[in-house]
Amino acid sequence: MAKKAAVILGSDSDLETMRPCIRRLKSFGIETEVRIISAHRTPAAAEALASAARAEGFGVLIAAAGKAAHLAGVLAAYTTLPVIGVPIKTSMMGGLDSLLSMVQMPKGVPVACVAVDGADNAAILAVQMLALADGDLAEQLAQFKADMAAEVAAKDQSIRTMEEF
Amino acid sequence: MAKKAAVILGSDSDLETMRPCIRRLKSFGIETEVRIISAHRTPAAAEALASAARAEGFGVLIAAAGKAAHLAGVLAAYTTLPVIGVPIKTSMMGGLDSLLSMVQMPKGVPVACVAVDGADNAAILAVQMLALADGDLAEQLAQFKADMAAEVAAKDQSIRTMEEF
Amino acid sequence: MAKKAAVILGSDSDLETMRPCIRRLKSFGIETEVRIISAHRTPAAAEALASAARAEGFGVLIAAAGKAAHLAGVLAAYTTLPVIGVPIKTSMMGGLDSLLSMVQMPKGVPVACVAVDGADNAAILAVQMLALADGDLAEQLAQFKADMAAEVAAKDQSIRTMEEF
Amino acid sequence: MAKKAAVILGSDSDLETMRPCIRRLKSFGIETEVRIISAHRTPAAAEALASAARAEGFGVLIAAAGKAAHLAGVLAAYTTLPVIGVPIKTSMMGGLDSLLSMVQMPKGVPVACVAVDGADNAAILAVQMLALADGDLAEQLAQFKADMAAEVAAKDQSIRTMEEF
Amino acid sequence: MAKKAAVILGSDSDLETMRPCIRRLKSFGIETEVRIISAHRTPAAAEALASAARAEGFGVLIAAAGKAAHLAGVLAAYTTLPVIGVPIKTSMMGGLDSLLSMVQMPKGVPVACVAVDGADNAAILAVQMLALADGDLAEQLAQFKADMAAEVAAKDQSIRTMEEF
Amino acid sequence: MAKKAAVILGSDSDLETMRPCIRRLKSFGIETEVRIISAHRTPAAAEALASAARAEGFGVLIAAAGKAAHLAGVLAAYTTLPVIGVPIKTSMMGGLDSLLSMVQMPKGVPVACVAVDGADNAAILAVQMLALADGDLAEQLAQFKADMAAEVAAKDQSIRTMEEF
Amino acid sequence: MAKKAAVILGSDSDLETMRPCIRRLKSFGIETEVRIISAHRTPAAAEALASAARAEGFGVLIAAAGKAAHLAGVLAAYTTLPVIGVPIKTSMMGGLDSLLSMVQMPKGVPVACVAVDGADNAAILAVQMLALADGDLAEQLAQFKADMAAEVAAKDQSIRTMEEF
Amino acid sequence: MAKKAAVILGSDSDLETMRPCIRRLKSFGIETEVRIISAHRTPAAAEALASAARAEGFGVLIAAAGKAAHLAGVLAAYTTLPVIGVPIKTSMMGGLDSLLSMVQMPKGVPVACVAVDGADNAAILAVQMLALADGDLAEQLAQFKADMAAEVAAKDQSIRTMEEF
Repeated sequence: MAKKAAVILGSDSDLETMRPCIRRLKSFGIETEVRIISAHRTPAAAEALASAARAEGFGVLIAAAGKAAHLAGVLAAYTTLPVIGVPIKTSMMGGLDSLLSMVQMPKGVPVACVAVDGADNAAILAVQMLALADGDLAEQLAQFKADMAAEVAAKDQSIRTMEEF
Repeated sequence: MAKKAAVILGSDSDLETMRPCIRRLKSFGIETEVRIISAHRTPAAAEALASAARAEGFGVLIAAAGKAAHLAGVLAAYTTLPVIGVPIKTSMMGGLDSLLSMVQMPKGVPVACVAVDGADNAAILAVQMLALADGDLAEQLAQFKADMAAEVAAKDQSIRTMEEF
Repeated sequence: MAKKAAVILGSDSDLETMRPCIRRLKSFGIETEVRIISAHRTPAAAEALASAARAEGFGVLIAAAGKAAHLAGVLAAYTTLPVIGVPIKTSMMGGLDSLLSMVQMPKGVPVACVAVDGADNAAILAVQMLALADGDLAEQLAQFKADMAAEVAAKDQSIRTMEEF
Repeated sequence: MAKKAAVILGSDSDLETMRPCIRRLKSFGIETEVRIISAHRTPAAAEALASAARAEGFGVLIAAAGKAAHLAGVLAAYTTLPVIGVPIKTSMMGGLDSLLSMVQMPKGVPVACVAVDGADNAAILAVQMLALADGDLAEQLAQFKADMAAEVAAKDQSIRTMEEF
Repeated sequence: MAKKAAVILGSDSDLETMRPCIRRLKSFGIETEVRIISAHRTPAAAEALASAARAEGFGVLIAAAGKAAHLAGVLAAYTTLPVIGVPIKTSMMGGLDSLLSMVQMPKGVPVACVAVDGADNAAILAVQMLALADGDLAEQLAQFKADMAAEVAAKDQSIRTMEEF
Repeated sequence: MAKKAAVILGSDSDLETMRPCIRRLKSFGIETEVRIISAHRTPAAAEALASAARAEGFGVLIAAAGKAAHLAGVLAAYTTLPVIGVPIKTSMMGGLDSLLSMVQMPKGVPVACVAVDGADNAAILAVQMLALADGDLAEQLAQFKADMAAEVAAKDQSIRTMEEF
Repeated sequence: MAKKAAVILGSDSDLETMRPCIRRLKSFGIETEVRIISAHRTPAAAEALASAARAEGFGVLIAAAGKAAHLAGVLAAYTTLPVIGVPIKTSMMGGLDSLLSMVQMPKGVPVACVAVDGADNAAILAVQMLALADGDLAEQLAQFKADMAAEVAAKDQSIRTMEEF
Repeated sequence: MAKKAAVILGSDSDLETMRPCIRRLKSFGIETEVRIISAHRTPAAAEALASAARAEGFGVLIAAAGKAAHLAGVLAAYTTLPVIGVPIKTSMMGGLDSLLSMVQMPKGVPVACVAVDGADNAAILAVQMLALADGDLAEQLAQFKADMAAEVAAKDQSIRTMEEF
């Protein structure tokens, strides 16, 4: 059976952005825990979660945070599980602050960063990781990819027959 | 036994930057193939590699590219394996072009982006992924983390006794 | 007779922005095909279109995409026709991600990049290219340029006689 | 016979960067005129060149300039030929000033922008345009693309057999 | 009597932003001509205006433009009068494109750049220049500065006595 | 008894953003003076305030300003009290202009910069400084930190029991 | 007697940049401890230091780090002492990554950020804070400020009499 | 007779960059005073210079500064003479910090900003301003512009006859 995923929000205000991540994980049948943990306001909770994650059956942690966005890095400090970071959009150049704070990790402690507000992709990346130990997930991913292609192809077919633009 | 890793360079000029990635993978005992494939000059090779990767026993692809840096995304288009992107430093704002081209992937096709020139971290992230299906790798990662901490602690010990600055 | 143009949208959400491009091409009498093709979700369609474009009578491809915006580069990988890229505005610094992803192409495979959301200019640039083999289009362009100048001159005339600001 | 190309340098200091552009054009047998014209110091020369370019047998203008980099836009104001812009690298964020000044052209007067310091690609893009009216150039481009692919494939072959990294 | 000022808009859409500039000039009694001239669509008008400006009694030109924003530089190419540039805000990083295009002028042909959307300041700067040959304007400027200080001081006085925040 | 704090606004338009700063200071019982002083329009007031601040019992100055945002630096030029700067958000890349203008102070005259629009944090930082000489404030800060942690923990508890996302 | 200061380096490679900070603190007679602690590699040491700092007689913590630069924020999570952050220059836009990661802290947990590589100013800011509880330090600061002014004035005097430039 | 110019350096390290400015002013016969004044370390000198400048026969002030670069703005606060700002290049994105700090002045107090390191242009702009009250300078400027054009034309002539590139 696939390992669990944790989705950790740096703030409850990130829930709206991250809902597609949670839903996508569940649509693949991944057991998902959702947490609100602040790297700066509840650092002990961050440490506790990350330190125990592997033993508690988690396979991947997904952290969403904006601005200084230290959450993913702080979790990665306490675990050897892969940590996926979702930089949340801000008004500072569209989230460039969040992105740089997440992605520019020092040697030895990586964070796997996805696009700004890339909640859905964080989930898909997590499933790709979990699928390394779960053939059924790999098959679901292949189907998911085929469905996406079919959806775009249908739109393409539709626009090719449009007459007025 | 752990799955294989592929390290794909967008240009032979990226080898120097990516050597620590290759060496790190090998130090964890990961069977590693190194390729030079250009998303724009040899796109068929990119497609061939990515399409067959899972069947050929790869567990993760690591792509390094600079500037427009489409390589990671092009590989991700053809596989459901996790693809790690290493944005190579350029003179355009220190690699911001490479970083944005890699990380800002559209919904459905993620790339796991690490820091600009983050070759070593790409390898560690790959090992973290492969460790999901390989307990021995997980133990090696724990040891690696402990060694890093010890190395920093030793430097800390040394500077605490310095008298002249 | 002038060659055909293809306008390829990376997503159906780009249609609104690109409508002026399609209309401008048609206003010059250019036979125009509109497609929705995703570099990452339907890469085979991108390859198919670009590989066959010259043989099928196309003279120029116009690709619109946002964020990682690999579409123009992926098309250019499979054709020697000129490919025009329209970076779509995003919330990441106003489309700087799209712009850098499109314009910073590696040596050997150029993309002709226009302004962020520069749909109209992409069409005009395409007509300028097609006019190299079609004297009638060149005359139309001269007329178009004269009309633009007249329009600005009329506004200038009007403001010169304004009395209250 | 193919139309001529003009390579216009905003400053003689741009020659080193643009030499690959001139050589590439000549390698395709394109008759190429090289000029030094400053949009701000010799604007009359810019106007004269651009206004007469079509009548004098030019098919495309390539303008290289740095910083405010108005040259390509100024030329485009006076001609309906396609104008390719090469933003020259500066110390201001690696040429972001040159890039934005060139690419962000207003509606009606496009510039086809290539990468910062993208001299070679400017030439290839010019050949792609000229090939629209010259089947022989199209064949040369196909050969050029095949040669590039072969060159990368050879490097790939070579690295695949490397044993030490 | 003070020389005249010209306020040149790159587009009629800039009028709303530049209205405070025109009004400020008139409040100082400066004879002001307002024009709509596009560097790229009506370059001949730009040349005509700038070339004749000194002879026609102008002392300063103020140019407002956005995006590639070549207008100020193009005017400066044809006159030795001081040219003030107002970069118009865009969605590309808040007008950074306009700012860099205006301010990064090459050696020999300066543009006096004010803040993005700095219409009012462009007028004040113009008056400061014209005051070099007009003692009455200098006195008006001193009064203007005193009035501004008084206005801020009044607000300061008011907030110092606020009790609830 | 704790020293006083001054909150200096570069413009009355900054009051809305800075209200949380004023309220937070008062909630810690800090005697707080609020001023509107412009570094450029009422520089004498800035000098007067800063020069006399230590003698008048102030322990810290908090300056809020946007765009060129010289206010904090100008105050720091006239005092050896710590000066905290709050860069106000602008449309220029989300306040990057304000941030750089405030934080990049030359050697010898520091400004303690907080986040863009970081009004609340400016107050907390001020209290942290004043607490160096006031044990009661230190205790209040510890309580404040504990309350914050409890608030996040409560939200975490709540989301852990959510069933629908 | 003044409280102690801690200077915490995220990496031993930061020592060269931070030496002026350490020396400046000592020149004011501040008892200074220098540590090498990585937020990501030795997070327990960061927690231990920050949690105990107030009780052990520290008055201020100075943290230097580059790239993701979480160190200052991580320390601030565990203490209510003021934490000063020194963003270390990187090749990513001159340290913009370090700066944004440090300064954009969330509400409730401030970091007092100084300029990129602003080692000396971090020390002066620390002394300004410690001087709130130590009149002697305040006097030293006044003298320091006077000395700086005299040094600049001497250079000014010297250049005023230069004859050749 | 033309009014005097003052060139104020924020630091003696700016002299090398600003030497062309001083020499250019002298080549036009402008009486030029050079000063080293720090907005933050010798603010009283800045105030004294600016407040008295008009009465002492100055017509324009040129201020060079880097990083926070408040100098031009601080001078402008104390005078109604035009103040020209030269942002000095830094390692922070090539001087973007200096540029934004100088150019983004608030309403009412403009600074005339030239390019980063634009020392020569600052002088030419100053001469353009002073020429408003001095016909002889206007003639010199016309000659200067003609000489520049001739110099570029000569280089153009030379490259047109080059045979090898």
